[in-house]
Amino acid sequence: MLPLGTETLVLTHDMIAAGVHFLPDADPADIAWRLVATNMSDLAAKGAEPVGVLLGHMLDEDDTRFLAGLGEALAHYHAPLLGGDTIAVPGGTRVLGLTAIGRATCPRVPSRTGARAGDGLYITGPVGAAMLGLEAIRAGTPDPAASLAYRRPEALMAEGRALAPLVTAMMDVSDGLLLDAARMARASGITLAIDSAAVPIATPENRRAEALRWGDDYQLLFTAPAGVVLPVPAFAIGRALDAGPAPLLVDGAPAGEEAPLGYQHRG
Amino acid sequence: MLPLGTETLVLTHDMIAAGVHFLPDADPADIAWRLVATNMSDLAAKGAEPVGVLLGHMLDEDDTRFLAGLGEALAHYHAPLLGGDTIAVPGGTRVLGLTAIGRATCPRVPSRTGARAGDGLYITGPVGAAMLGLEAIRAGTPDPAASLAYRRPEALMAEGRALAPLVTAMMDVSDGLLLDAARMARASGITLAIDSAAVPIATPENRRAEALRWGDDYQLLFTAPAGVVLPVPAFAIGRALDAGPAPLLVDGAPAGEEAPLGYQHRG
Repeated sequence: MLPLGTETLVLTHDMIAAGVHFLPDADPADIAWRLVATNMSDLAAKGAEPVGVLLGHMLDEDDTRFLAGLGEALAHYHAPLLGGDTIAVPGGTRVLGLTAIGRATCPRVPSRTGARAGDGLYITGPVGAAMLGLEAIRAGTPDPAASLAYRRPEALMAEGRALAPLVTAMMDVSDGLLLDAARMARASGITLAIDSAAVPIATPENRRAEALRWGDDYQLLFTAPAGVVLPVPAFAIGRALDAGPAPLLVDGAPAGEEAPLGYQHRG
Repeated sequence: MLPLGTETLVLTHDMIAAGVHFLPDADPADIAWRLVATNMSDLAAKGAEPVGVLLGHMLDEDDTRFLAGLGEALAHYHAPLLGGDTIAVPGGTRVLGLTAIGRATCPRVPSRTGARAGDGLYITGPVGAAMLGLEAIRAGTPDPAASLAYRRPEALMAEGRALAPLVTAMMDVSDGLLLDAARMARASGITLAIDSAAVPIATPENRRAEALRWGDDYQLLFTAPAGVVLPVPAFAIGRALDAGPAPLLVDGAPAGEEAPLGYQHRG
């Protein structure tokens, strides 16, 4: 966040690499979409509206599909391409970077640090859809709709803007609900207690534990004072407590001791 | 350039890769410095002052030297690190990106498009120093000062700010004087006539032709109305003419027909 004149800028930069953040044989149009959506989701979590993006582009043999997906995504988010850089690295691992510039719409820009004991904990929608989408790709499912949630994630711009004035803390769930919730708890100096059964999931019930640890869904996770009327649909999934020995409790037990809370990257 | 509220932002993004933009065995502190200086020079050419940077960082086995050089460069340019992204790409070509955000200091932000027939053409200082510096590295010259101009280029922030209100067009010379001058001429729709003997060079006279084609010196190239009093030292090296058949004349002859005008990357 950067106050500048009469505005507050929100700046994000994400970098992705073949084999780490995307499958090397993925449709480049989907790679471009996800690169844009990831950055837009960072803006959404700050209640910011996009001003534009800068692209750090490593040339491929044929960038037609990449540019098509980029154009689609930028049009979708009303984010003009303001500039950037293009490099050619013969034989190099494909690496792409995107900087997104947003304009804060709310004087107090939300961050992950503001959750207070007594707040409710909410999420805007189900987790696990991207996991199923990636599995569909890996299984070679012919129906492209089966992988849409993974290939074309939707950053929740309108929801972020509507929530920004009301929340005490907000972030997007990009690395898994439990991992991201633990980060919010640490940053805020409180403990978050999650009722796992209350978390909406896009998967069958027997995969709930995985859905809570999978990322790439870009739902918004936020805390708000008890009793506040929310302007968008959201699910109450827990609450903020005074800091205890663990930053995160899942169904009353400290989380992260048996299974990792999430994954940094998986596709 | 991006008008935002009461300010105009200047945004730049540069991406560099091992083996293309820097020697794989270069001191990472120098790589960091050059990455910062390259972006700062883009701001200088717009008369902008740095607001901060975002780093797209691919982790190395040991980033101590990189971070040391980054810290030095950011302190030197008063440009705080505002954020960014860090990725790990095991075995991948090392790629780094930097986004710099600047604040325009002059209501009419200079670009390369404004040169008009009749303007004088100027450069702030000698070209060829970076070429000698890279040669010193390749020759294994023990004196680190011999390669300083290549390893630690200086972006001309104060000069850019002082010149911005007076110039008709301005850019930094990053890819070679002749190539960059030809770009300015094309962008402005005029012809630039350079008197090659008037160009200050950091090399012996017998390497003048190379010095005019080498980049990485980050001098500022600009046009200004005839007779204007310049606020910083600069060398008059030619003038802008009505558009002729060639965008660039060197000593009266169309340039680029015998030798390339410059190089995109060389170290």
